[in-house]
Amino acid sequence: MIKAKIYVTLKPSILDPQGKVVTNTLHSLGYSEVNETRISKFIELNFDTDDEVKVRKDLEVICDKVLANPNTETYSFELEK
Amino acid sequence: MIKAKIYVTLKPSILDPQGKVVTNTLHSLGYSEVNETRISKFIELNFDTDDEVKVRKDLEVICDKVLANPNTETYSFELEK
Repeated sequence: MIKAKIYVTLKPSILDPQGKVVTNTLHSLGYSEVNETRISKFIELNFDTDDEVKVRKDLEVICDKVLANPNTETYSFELEK
Repeated sequence: MIKAKIYVTLKPSILDPQGKVVTNTLHSLGYSEVNETRISKFIELNFDTDDEVKVRKDLEVICDKVLANPNTETYSFELEK
């Protein structure tokens, strides 16, 4: 079995309104040293196979077509056996 | 500056309907070897300080009170200087 850990993150140039709200909330709670918040998705997929080459190839397609919005997001992943 | 990387994950006993939808979608696309998907939040906070002890203490409160729902989610974090 292979576990894939995928990070789907907004591109740096894209405003993250949810992160902005968290930053403002933390400031209003007194945590003034927090200067930026980015909120991303962290996705774990379990594959019932040990073929790492195929999983990497499949993941590129899965991220491009299902998990990430290529207009606003980037992704990266790592595999664990 | 300290960057905190926070993972907010559903407890294993809590159903993840969003993950279930992704699993079903991947099956219908032919990726039958995917047997489980868990979708979590990945949050990056930048702190304008180098006091790691204070940041760790603040983060425990921030995660408990703002970022995670203690009824359904758990969290973990790591710090980067």
